[in-house]
Amino acid sequence: MSKRTSTSPRVRKHLDNAHLLENLVYMGEENVSTSIELIQYDKTQISERAVRPDEKLKELIKPDCVNWFRITGISDAGTTYNICKAFGIPRFDVKDLLSGYRVTKVITHDTNTFILMSGAYISEDKELIIYQNAFILGDNYVVSFQERPSTIFNDAKDAIKEGRVMIREKDEDYLLYILLNCLHSSFNDAIIKLNNRLNEMEDRLIDDDTENINVMRFISRRKKDASSLRRIIAPLREEYINLLHNTNKLIKPENIMYFEDFDDRLRTSLDDLLAFRESVSSLSDLYFNNNNLRLNNVIKKLTIVSTIFIPLTFMVGVWGMNFDYMPELRWAHGYLFAWGIMLLIVILAVFYLKRKRWF
Amino acid sequence: MSKRTSTSPRVRKHLDNAHLLENLVYMGEENVSTSIELIQYDKTQISERAVRPDEKLKELIKPDCVNWFRITGISDAGTTYNICKAFGIPRFDVKDLLSGYRVTKVITHDTNTFILMSGAYISEDKELIIYQNAFILGDNYVVSFQERPSTIFNDAKDAIKEGRVMIREKDEDYLLYILLNCLHSSFNDAIIKLNNRLNEMEDRLIDDDTENINVMRFISRRKKDASSLRRIIAPLREEYINLLHNTNKLIKPENIMYFEDFDDRLRTSLDDLLAFRESVSSLSDLYFNNNNLRLNNVIKKLTIVSTIFIPLTFMVGVWGMNFDYMPELRWAHGYLFAWGIMLLIVILAVFYLKRKRWF
Amino acid sequence: MSKRTSTSPRVRKHLDNAHLLENLVYMGEENVSTSIELIQYDKTQISERAVRPDEKLKELIKPDCVNWFRITGISDAGTTYNICKAFGIPRFDVKDLLSGYRVTKVITHDTNTFILMSGAYISEDKELIIYQNAFILGDNYVVSFQERPSTIFNDAKDAIKEGRVMIREKDEDYLLYILLNCLHSSFNDAIIKLNNRLNEMEDRLIDDDTENINVMRFISRRKKDASSLRRIIAPLREEYINLLHNTNKLIKPENIMYFEDFDDRLRTSLDDLLAFRESVSSLSDLYFNNNNLRLNNVIKKLTIVSTIFIPLTFMVGVWGMNFDYMPELRWAHGYLFAWGIMLLIVILAVFYLKRKRWF
Amino acid sequence: MSKRTSTSPRVRKHLDNAHLLENLVYMGEENVSTSIELIQYDKTQISERAVRPDEKLKELIKPDCVNWFRITGISDAGTTYNICKAFGIPRFDVKDLLSGYRVTKVITHDTNTFILMSGAYISEDKELIIYQNAFILGDNYVVSFQERPSTIFNDAKDAIKEGRVMIREKDEDYLLYILLNCLHSSFNDAIIKLNNRLNEMEDRLIDDDTENINVMRFISRRKKDASSLRRIIAPLREEYINLLHNTNKLIKPENIMYFEDFDDRLRTSLDDLLAFRESVSSLSDLYFNNNNLRLNNVIKKLTIVSTIFIPLTFMVGVWGMNFDYMPELRWAHGYLFAWGIMLLIVILAVFYLKRKRWF
Amino acid sequence: MSKRTSTSPRVRKHLDNAHLLENLVYMGEENVSTSIELIQYDKTQISERAVRPDEKLKELIKPDCVNWFRITGISDAGTTYNICKAFGIPRFDVKDLLSGYRVTKVITHDTNTFILMSGAYISEDKELIIYQNAFILGDNYVVSFQERPSTIFNDAKDAIKEGRVMIREKDEDYLLYILLNCLHSSFNDAIIKLNNRLNEMEDRLIDDDTENINVMRFISRRKKDASSLRRIIAPLREEYINLLHNTNKLIKPENIMYFEDFDDRLRTSLDDLLAFRESVSSLSDLYFNNNNLRLNNVIKKLTIVSTIFIPLTFMVGVWGMNFDYMPELRWAHGYLFAWGIMLLIVILAVFYLKRKRWF
Repeated sequence: MSKRTSTSPRVRKHLDNAHLLENLVYMGEENVSTSIELIQYDKTQISERAVRPDEKLKELIKPDCVNWFRITGISDAGTTYNICKAFGIPRFDVKDLLSGYRVTKVITHDTNTFILMSGAYISEDKELIIYQNAFILGDNYVVSFQERPSTIFNDAKDAIKEGRVMIREKDEDYLLYILLNCLHSSFNDAIIKLNNRLNEMEDRLIDDDTENINVMRFISRRKKDASSLRRIIAPLREEYINLLHNTNKLIKPENIMYFEDFDDRLRTSLDDLLAFRESVSSLSDLYFNNNNLRLNNVIKKLTIVSTIFIPLTFMVGVWGMNFDYMPELRWAHGYLFAWGIMLLIVILAVFYLKRKRWF
Repeated sequence: MSKRTSTSPRVRKHLDNAHLLENLVYMGEENVSTSIELIQYDKTQISERAVRPDEKLKELIKPDCVNWFRITGISDAGTTYNICKAFGIPRFDVKDLLSGYRVTKVITHDTNTFILMSGAYISEDKELIIYQNAFILGDNYVVSFQERPSTIFNDAKDAIKEGRVMIREKDEDYLLYILLNCLHSSFNDAIIKLNNRLNEMEDRLIDDDTENINVMRFISRRKKDASSLRRIIAPLREEYINLLHNTNKLIKPENIMYFEDFDDRLRTSLDDLLAFRESVSSLSDLYFNNNNLRLNNVIKKLTIVSTIFIPLTFMVGVWGMNFDYMPELRWAHGYLFAWGIMLLIVILAVFYLKRKRWF
Repeated sequence: MSKRTSTSPRVRKHLDNAHLLENLVYMGEENVSTSIELIQYDKTQISERAVRPDEKLKELIKPDCVNWFRITGISDAGTTYNICKAFGIPRFDVKDLLSGYRVTKVITHDTNTFILMSGAYISEDKELIIYQNAFILGDNYVVSFQERPSTIFNDAKDAIKEGRVMIREKDEDYLLYILLNCLHSSFNDAIIKLNNRLNEMEDRLIDDDTENINVMRFISRRKKDASSLRRIIAPLREEYINLLHNTNKLIKPENIMYFEDFDDRLRTSLDDLLAFRESVSSLSDLYFNNNNLRLNNVIKKLTIVSTIFIPLTFMVGVWGMNFDYMPELRWAHGYLFAWGIMLLIVILAVFYLKRKRWF
Repeated sequence: MSKRTSTSPRVRKHLDNAHLLENLVYMGEENVSTSIELIQYDKTQISERAVRPDEKLKELIKPDCVNWFRITGISDAGTTYNICKAFGIPRFDVKDLLSGYRVTKVITHDTNTFILMSGAYISEDKELIIYQNAFILGDNYVVSFQERPSTIFNDAKDAIKEGRVMIREKDEDYLLYILLNCLHSSFNDAIIKLNNRLNEMEDRLIDDDTENINVMRFISRRKKDASSLRRIIAPLREEYINLLHNTNKLIKPENIMYFEDFDDRLRTSLDDLLAFRESVSSLSDLYFNNNNLRLNNVIKKLTIVSTIFIPLTFMVGVWGMNFDYMPELRWAHGYLFAWGIMLLIVILAVFYLKRKRWF
Repeated sequence: MSKRTSTSPRVRKHLDNAHLLENLVYMGEENVSTSIELIQYDKTQISERAVRPDEKLKELIKPDCVNWFRITGISDAGTTYNICKAFGIPRFDVKDLLSGYRVTKVITHDTNTFILMSGAYISEDKELIIYQNAFILGDNYVVSFQERPSTIFNDAKDAIKEGRVMIREKDEDYLLYILLNCLHSSFNDAIIKLNNRLNEMEDRLIDDDTENINVMRFISRRKKDASSLRRIIAPLREEYINLLHNTNKLIKPENIMYFEDFDDRLRTSLDDLLAFRESVSSLSDLYFNNNNLRLNNVIKKLTIVSTIFIPLTFMVGVWGMNFDYMPELRWAHGYLFAWGIMLLIVILAVFYLKRKRWF
């Protein structure tokens, strides 16, 4: 990826009136073919298998287990649509899923709940990556969609296998809570890493050690990062209320406290983002101030040099005049006397500037 | 259109107390005579015809079909008023429609719902154009008004003809949803195109390649664009609640989810606009900073030249003095010695400035 | 009016504890003696007469007509109070009316509704003028108060006479709606005119044609205008809710839609003002940027002159030295050679600066 | 008071965990010993006497009169507490009263209502002074507390004596309304006086007549004033709702309209403060702009001097060179010719600068 | 702690998917082993003892007393979890407690209420320290957690011992109120101390006495302090509503007024923080303005020196020319005459600059 392209956020695609096409179109950038993993567990047993996208997914659900369909890759619009249709998700929700990571919504249908949201992480080259996620919570099952292959849910799978944090004792709504937490954890990690980069840059600015860095570009990108992150979290929190007031009772009353806890987490993240924004703008002030101080210094130097030498140059000009009668030119020690005068001027100027605290 | 006029947004007209005139007056700028197209369809059949404005429109409605009156051109105030009156829209609503694209409202009358809103698109010469739209949703019919001829609803017509996306299976409220989506799609496209222009300009600013561009004018226009777009979407979202709570039951309960989905879309667009505004202001910071850095550089150069040459000029002034006794002037290698001294001064100055990282 | 005084908004008067004085005091600036016009109309007839302030106003009301008392001039506090008292307006409301155009309120009393608001227009010398208005809506009558004589309601009177826009068919609440619209129309006109002045100034700034204009003062006044206008509209919209929820049923249910329409108008005006504010601040950015560019240019020029001439001056200083042995001084073509060197330096400097794009 | 100390707002005191001390502590700055005046009136009679703080205050209340205890000075914490306790005010409310003018609250107890708020006025030396006030409204009585002796309620007392504005006809809640209005009147007067100072300063800035004034300090203090005033009014308006919904029915239904009127006044003051803030920030822009223009001017002057003289100095340097063969030096009119050349340069430079509009 | 590290706020730790670990992890920075103190009191008696973390805490509760478990140090995650579990606090609440001072919440469980909040104080080296606190309010008992050993509750303990401020007469909810007040008192003290530092700095800026101070760093840190403090108080106020609406009736109706009083305190603190933020940004304006004025001064000086000496240098250059015929060079008093001319130029320049008020 060249430096240039990474400066601008990805140029978003737009297909005029895509909503009128009979066939759905994937408009994101991750061409990942769909793979499905089915994890089924209850207190005593756990099984795990790969599923072909053309299998009848709903028939694979075991009634007394929690069934987790973990789907990676949504770029094949037809397959994605078929999967969603199998679980009763309406066409326009699927269109939003395929529309290139921008829409956030939580919709409570009669027999399931559809959650569309974005995830974020910091890539190897330290840039913020945002991608689409979706969940379907139904009776006995959770379907998770991920736009890119990622290890973000692996820890959850391990925790299930090892029976950690009560997952095995609890139902599918608890699994959803765990998966949402995984996404939030990665999101939180992104804020922390960006914050650390900011602090690093601030230290460099305070040490005035930013020679080969385009600070302005750094600040501009961080502003965009903050804006992108806010763009994910703020609507999620707004929509999240639909989950808390779930009218289809897919979230059991005894588990609602977990989801309320997650809401607190979202609020905390919004507060963190606010603080992050303030840090960026304070960094930008620092940078502008540094530039100003540097300019002040340069001009001060110019003024010092000028203040000292311009009078001297005048003096030597005087004694370079060609008047017939200039007695001091004839003195035996005239030249020495001239140097003395000039030295005096320098001393006076330096003394004056010192007192004015220019050095 | 000259460059000058396109700088300022169109000068808005105002007719004092126009609300007291017996005859309605069109105050927009698009002089387009009214043409009406009537599209009637159900699951099995579809018909399409041109209608004269003086026909009795309401009598043309076929009871078991969806009847779409597609009206282009509203500048003939009398004709527009007659059409609206035929569908029972009150006088002051028509006045708002004719008042030159500024008012947004969604009003639920007893037998129909009147929606007044603005549309936006990016013209050939890349400027944002805003124009007035209106819809009447009634029993079995939708009336759409467009201030300018545009292809924006053509896709919808094609979709109806080809029976795509279930339009033919569904009722007039679904048609309204489709048409609103067409407007939103064009609006969305405008944001994306403006964003891309912004990113382009940002790349040029970072490469400092903005010689013949009036960046300030660019920024000022984009700010106005953002302001105009917000001016469309924000009140629409506020008024949209009236459609969701439609008391005249013109939107069927099973279709309300489509309209809720559209509300999510409006929120997303507002979020996009917020991000757009932030990008504009970040671009403006970048531009000011570039100017400052350039000024710093110019002053630095001046200081370098002065710091090196002012002492030299002083030195040659010294040896240009006319004192009788200046021993070095008599030395065999005095001149060479002078050049040596001066070279030394240059080297010291350059060395000093290098260490201060001025080069 | 001298330039100075028009810079500052009018110095507001304040009378300590005026609320404790037995006699009300007018604290505005318009000394206009009270004149009353009474217009009475129904579908078939219309009469119009001047009324003396000391007549018993309430007894003049004809029961089956709409009675419009049009009062101009409120500076005679006693008279104003008597008129209000005749219609049952409490003392502290009258005090607010007399207090110098600052308070906005809509109060629903048992038998009437009192509306206190400010109007705005642009004077001949293009400055924003704000003045006090009030309305009393009662059974069969409307009383309108205007602080200054103005033609703002003349159109309404003409419309009544000519029976336009259904005024004659409708009741006193509809008359109030018409009068409010007249005020709003003048307010709207003010925004448009101010916007046009802004656009004009922006064009001049972009052409850098602002020599004899105090741009800063212009910007500062426009900010104050925006602030004054917001000060009128924002509280009016807040208070307006009281009119919509009118508990004394003075607004008939079938006319409530007109007043809801007026509320949309207020919102639109607030949106316009927001856009106006943004334009002012964008103008201010443009101006600061212009000044900066001009400064950059001046400094660039200084640097160009210095960069070219300072080395030259050094060179001529060298050949002005008095060393005994300076071979080039003795050369036949030494002088020509010197000019050649200097020309070379100039060419190199110009070439260098050209490449750096300083010209 | 030295200039220094008046720059900073008073350093606030803090006593760690003062809330755990058995004895209340006064933490304000006004050491004023408590004095109590009791004014008792009904329609026919009025009496006025001084009361010692150790008298049993509640027993002095005459049942059929309005009893106004006017208390000045609260710095004696014990006495203040005893007075409050006599009227049934809880300990922590008294603590807030004594805590040094910061807390605003309106609390409705069973038999009385406690109002804690700050007052503001402009002192002789034109600085904003803020001090604590409190009211207790009970059955038949009002207790008013003032931290400093002030004439602010004298007008109210006079109005009672002279039976103005219906005070004598009305009950204790009306007296409270009158006293609140007195405080508001003084607050309003403060805003107006500060506004006038602002306008004065703006005129001076526009005339560029600010030589011996520290404008920045002026702006900084006005910002603090605005902040302090907002700090008083904003929470008061928030708390005021408790008074309007008074559950203990101490405010009679027929008087509630007075208190609603007062709420409008608070809103108007908040609007005024908002406008004041905007004026301050616009003044600050004006000041920065003035400084910039001045800098531009200085640099322009430097550039003019340099542009004219640097080439001249080069020319005289040329003719000061010591080449053997410099023909113009030998010309009869060489010197005159040199002056001619130099004059030409000056004329060209001046002409060039004039065309560029530097003069 | 080196200066560098204290510039950046502490780098926050993050453990990917910590919520999936079976064992809780403490992620704060205070490694303080857990110590428990149990204070039991009623009106007549008081006892105090140290408790080992592995004792059965709930069995130590005396039924007719108020039981205060004062716990210091939470870094041993297992111990902390066990203590919380003993009182019925769910696992994810404990996780938030251990997660490194960021989450604020008030949760009402069936038999107790869990309050998680941060405390703040100013350390010896004048920096703001933030640390985690938690409370459990149950039947007859209060458990307080503190991340660091601190004296903040010692005053409360003393007050209990000495039976001050009615603690001994009241129940455990009153104790909670007292402890919350202790935290708030320390928080309030922090704002006051930061405010005082700000005022100090402002005085130094106005005296221009900031030579060895990095003002920008100071401002940047104070902004972060304000941000951190807001981060504590704002969510606390939001969550506090849960305490006021306590559904488990742990707060007695007669004590609810204390908790409402505390809510007023939180609002006041938010207002104080707002004012603090404004002061910081006004300080920052002051600083930038100072720098600008200093730059203006430097450039003015340069211009003065140049304006005086550049013409002089030109004059001496003139008389240094080598024209054969320069009559003034031959005059007897030519040299004196030259000095006279030059003196005249100086006097004129100084006079001109004086009139322009450059000195």
